[in-house]
Amino acid sequence: MQRSIATVSLSGTLPEKLEAIAAAGFDGVEIFENDLLYYDGSPREIRQRCADLGLDITLFQPFRDFEGCRRDRLARNLDRAERKFDLMQELGTDLVLVCSNVAADALGDKQILVDDLGLLAERAGARNLRIGYEALAWGRHVNQWQQVWDIVREANHPALGMILDSFHTYSIKGDPSGIADVPGEKIFFVQMADAPILAMDVLEWSRHFRCFPGQGEFDLPAFLAPILKAGYRGPLSLEIFNDGFRAAPPRANAADGLRSLLYLEEKTRERLLQTAPAVAAEPDLLFAPPAADTYDGVEFLEFAVDDASGAKLGGWLEGLGFAKVGQHRSKNVSLLRQGDINLILNAEPYSFAHNFFESHGPSLCATAVRVKDSARALARAVGYHGQPYRGLVGPNERELAAVRAPDGSLIYLVDQGADGQTIYDTDFSLSGGVADNGLGLTRIDHMAMALPADGLDTWVLFYKSLLDFKADDEVVLPDPYGLVKSRALRSQCSSIRLPLNISENRNTAISHALSHYRGSGVHHIAFDCEDIFTAVKKAKEAGVALLDIPLNYYDDLAARFDFDDEFLSELAYYNVLYDRDANGGELFHVYTEPFEDRFFFEVIQRRNGYAGYGAANVAVRLAAMAKARSGGLRHAKL
Amino acid sequence: MQRSIATVSLSGTLPEKLEAIAAAGFDGVEIFENDLLYYDGSPREIRQRCADLGLDITLFQPFRDFEGCRRDRLARNLDRAERKFDLMQELGTDLVLVCSNVAADALGDKQILVDDLGLLAERAGARNLRIGYEALAWGRHVNQWQQVWDIVREANHPALGMILDSFHTYSIKGDPSGIADVPGEKIFFVQMADAPILAMDVLEWSRHFRCFPGQGEFDLPAFLAPILKAGYRGPLSLEIFNDGFRAAPPRANAADGLRSLLYLEEKTRERLLQTAPAVAAEPDLLFAPPAADTYDGVEFLEFAVDDASGAKLGGWLEGLGFAKVGQHRSKNVSLLRQGDINLILNAEPYSFAHNFFESHGPSLCATAVRVKDSARALARAVGYHGQPYRGLVGPNERELAAVRAPDGSLIYLVDQGADGQTIYDTDFSLSGGVADNGLGLTRIDHMAMALPADGLDTWVLFYKSLLDFKADDEVVLPDPYGLVKSRALRSQCSSIRLPLNISENRNTAISHALSHYRGSGVHHIAFDCEDIFTAVKKAKEAGVALLDIPLNYYDDLAARFDFDDEFLSELAYYNVLYDRDANGGELFHVYTEPFEDRFFFEVIQRRNGYAGYGAANVAVRLAAMAKARSGGLRHAKL
Repeated sequence: MQRSIATVSLSGTLPEKLEAIAAAGFDGVEIFENDLLYYDGSPREIRQRCADLGLDITLFQPFRDFEGCRRDRLARNLDRAERKFDLMQELGTDLVLVCSNVAADALGDKQILVDDLGLLAERAGARNLRIGYEALAWGRHVNQWQQVWDIVREANHPALGMILDSFHTYSIKGDPSGIADVPGEKIFFVQMADAPILAMDVLEWSRHFRCFPGQGEFDLPAFLAPILKAGYRGPLSLEIFNDGFRAAPPRANAADGLRSLLYLEEKTRERLLQTAPAVAAEPDLLFAPPAADTYDGVEFLEFAVDDASGAKLGGWLEGLGFAKVGQHRSKNVSLLRQGDINLILNAEPYSFAHNFFESHGPSLCATAVRVKDSARALARAVGYHGQPYRGLVGPNERELAAVRAPDGSLIYLVDQGADGQTIYDTDFSLSGGVADNGLGLTRIDHMAMALPADGLDTWVLFYKSLLDFKADDEVVLPDPYGLVKSRALRSQCSSIRLPLNISENRNTAISHALSHYRGSGVHHIAFDCEDIFTAVKKAKEAGVALLDIPLNYYDDLAARFDFDDEFLSELAYYNVLYDRDANGGELFHVYTEPFEDRFFFEVIQRRNGYAGYGAANVAVRLAAMAKARSGGLRHAKL
Repeated sequence: MQRSIATVSLSGTLPEKLEAIAAAGFDGVEIFENDLLYYDGSPREIRQRCADLGLDITLFQPFRDFEGCRRDRLARNLDRAERKFDLMQELGTDLVLVCSNVAADALGDKQILVDDLGLLAERAGARNLRIGYEALAWGRHVNQWQQVWDIVREANHPALGMILDSFHTYSIKGDPSGIADVPGEKIFFVQMADAPILAMDVLEWSRHFRCFPGQGEFDLPAFLAPILKAGYRGPLSLEIFNDGFRAAPPRANAADGLRSLLYLEEKTRERLLQTAPAVAAEPDLLFAPPAADTYDGVEFLEFAVDDASGAKLGGWLEGLGFAKVGQHRSKNVSLLRQGDINLILNAEPYSFAHNFFESHGPSLCATAVRVKDSARALARAVGYHGQPYRGLVGPNERELAAVRAPDGSLIYLVDQGADGQTIYDTDFSLSGGVADNGLGLTRIDHMAMALPADGLDTWVLFYKSLLDFKADDEVVLPDPYGLVKSRALRSQCSSIRLPLNISENRNTAISHALSHYRGSGVHHIAFDCEDIFTAVKKAKEAGVALLDIPLNYYDDLAARFDFDDEFLSELAYYNVLYDRDANGGELFHVYTEPFEDRFFFEVIQRRNGYAGYGAANVAVRLAAMAKARSGGLRHAKL
């Protein structure tokens, strides 16, 4: 399909928007009238610029409050339309969006609406132009696509057709399935927008909170599928009113937009495979990337360090029971292991990790995930405009498929390899031993990331499309200095989990972490363990600095749960936090203090299927961290 | 009344909050449980700290989901309450807030609720503690104060009373007037919160969008008046859940909170004067500042400059038809005049203006407003905790009453003076002449300010309380790089108007202005004129750099209004913007380019009672300014 986007979806001046749209790979653009109005150049100039950039102007929009206007204004409104037709011809586009009248004094009599739109279509048709009529969810009399179709059918003019917009249908709980029965040639244009489900005024919701497909909660394949079944083969266009997008860098945002259309196409194609296989199989209609891989957890995490921070981080990890089990054959890279957890500390100069260290300081520079077929996984990622990465590989070393995550770190896609050898076998000299002081840490439970406020949607879409992850609902958490939002991504099988944390305030722990990273970065890494008390006891003995939790927290646990005093004292002594879900699932977890004020580690034990991340305890953790940061003295315990 | 605030209303750790609350002048504090929970110190320590700061702990809150809980949980819930009673006794407070049960499985049978609360009150009473029962707007069965009263009356226990919260009543369109008939001694506590009227989920609204009294849209005096009529004389407390407040500097925010209570008291007192004069007159009950003055417009504006920028600004103003008519007798200060407009350029070293210039660069450092009685106006401002200012006054010079605005600039309160002499007569050597090249500018129409996103509420409250201004509704405007919000303040008679503009995005024109000011500052100053075309013609001849408006804007005017081509050409040639309101009121206005990239001037003509600020044209102005800033070439016109 032709992929298009409305200029209103992006930030900047009209030329900045057009360049971003073309660079992202769109081949069509809707010109939002105000963008033209405020531009200091002629419509012909815009037409030429679009042509130079390879962009069709798919639509000019909007033309408001026309049909059913007060009778004494009709002639004047037709004159107004002719002025806009002049403009369209200068722009070189033949389609204008007429949105349903919202005026308080608009007339609702169907015959008047049919006649008015017929009249307008006649004027447009005489100039080889077309009218697309769209129901606004807050239209005075017309707010559903079924009404639009009714009017368009009655008017029965070749220059009059429908424009469909997913937001206007879903925001008022409309049902798109009947669109499949409309003749495809009477659908002139299709606009797609997603949105979070919000209980608020529809107009406000529409103007400020729309987002790209896949970033919100609407079932958009269920909207597009009947449109394609009806035979529509015109452009698929994004029209997103979003406060954040209005301020976001337009190139990166347009790239997200294109990716969101690809994702929508893939998901729609999957839907159509069951109900209309012929449409699904139509060549060049819908994006069909290689199927997503399945994952079997995290193979390893790689930290970018220099010699000094590498030694320090290594010391911390030894305190947490990790043992150095390998040294890279050709590079200044070491391997630490415990249970199924592999951690790589990379201090190699002239490497990707070194560049990452230079920009971000000690940080997580790569995450390796286990896949069945790395070539296929990489092909999928690249199909979704992911940026592949090839590093320097020494003789006999294994080359890993990799794609860049939104923060510039790498995601390695690691399969078993034809020879049955692991990356550790090929690239490392292994010592084979595992330390005695292991804490019983078994696997990586999750990697939490700190993102800037406008980064969340980008990450969600990246992981949903390239890696087929799911996104949990957003949770809002109090920090002593502002609110923090968290949304967790996870692989379909939940073996890889990434809670993403953002804050809109300058002073929160998240913002603090961001400023230390100079960009997005790892916030904390959680390790599963066999037994929390064994683990924390050993960690304490090894001198690991655990985050000190106020005693008042344990007084409240005592009020909430039926614990005996001895058990409570043990929790408090070891700074172990506790949560219980509605089904009796239990979480025990403990935090280290931050490593160089950048990120920290968590040791957790889940019991009885507890699936969350201890949101109930985030506030106490954040307050404890704020206290630790401010250098406050800790009071002695017990 | 005792003035109190809940710790949840402010940002920071518990000690930071308590210090800010005491510094603002509150004498009571509600301890929000989580703040204590996350604090690394004992409840006794908090008790002592509050005592040291002169704060009573007026309430401990909240205790949730108690009454009507599942029968098998009642005993456990009573145990939980006893734990919290222990805590209260350590804190030294006798009142706990029990909010109505929200659990899906909560029982609604009234007798059960009466019995449960009676049981709890019995336990509390035995320890000399009291239970305040409050209806949450989203309570499962109990969500109105009338239900709470019904239950409290039936339970009839001396340790059980009502807690009233304005948000929970108004958010579900409840009517507080009947509270006047409740026995005052059964009202244990009163929480006040304002909010903007938002069409959204009540819980979300409550948790994120509450604000201080006077900053929102609720009629709070109508809530407080019947409570006082009922005989309640306990604390008046603020409980504000607000995302911005959670991140705002706590001291400044607490000061706003106290001011909001004073404002609420004054407005309630005015209401009671009519309906219950004895209550209104009760000594020490309600804040009673000197009545607000009336205003007769702006007497003068004072700009902080140095010699270089003063000469440049003087040149700009001469181009706009101002003539230098006076020189200060003892200071490096000059007076420019046109029509009723007096502008003062202050380049005096070692002065307030100089300090302001050092911090902000060339900027508006003082606004003088005409009042009937400056002593009374100042007393009112100081009563509202405004910061008075006294400058250096030379011999025979007049001393002006002044108070600091939220941006640190001054507001002079100027009356006629006993001797009938003006400040110009006493302080300046006047040349008497008015230049021939006057543009026919008559008066100051408005002064628009650029504020950081979190500054709006502070300004609104400042002007509403100290100066008795009104606040118009908020308007949202598109900037090419993000959205801008605008809310206009004006004196009761509309002779002084201050549109306030904020942006949450880093890249907008507002943010640009802010970064140039290093703080809030003047954004533009608009002068009324007799005839826009005469004014703009002369300005053009005088070489004033007018902001260039794209021709496309005039094509759209042509489509929207029935102008002849010649008139449109004239508008376009002179870059005059046009707007028309629903009643036929018309606005003509033109902008200069920004002075040193900081602020700009507007010349406007209102016809037929146009009362707005040309919101319809803000987007084209912002786009034109962005273009001018980015140094784009302007296309030749006509």
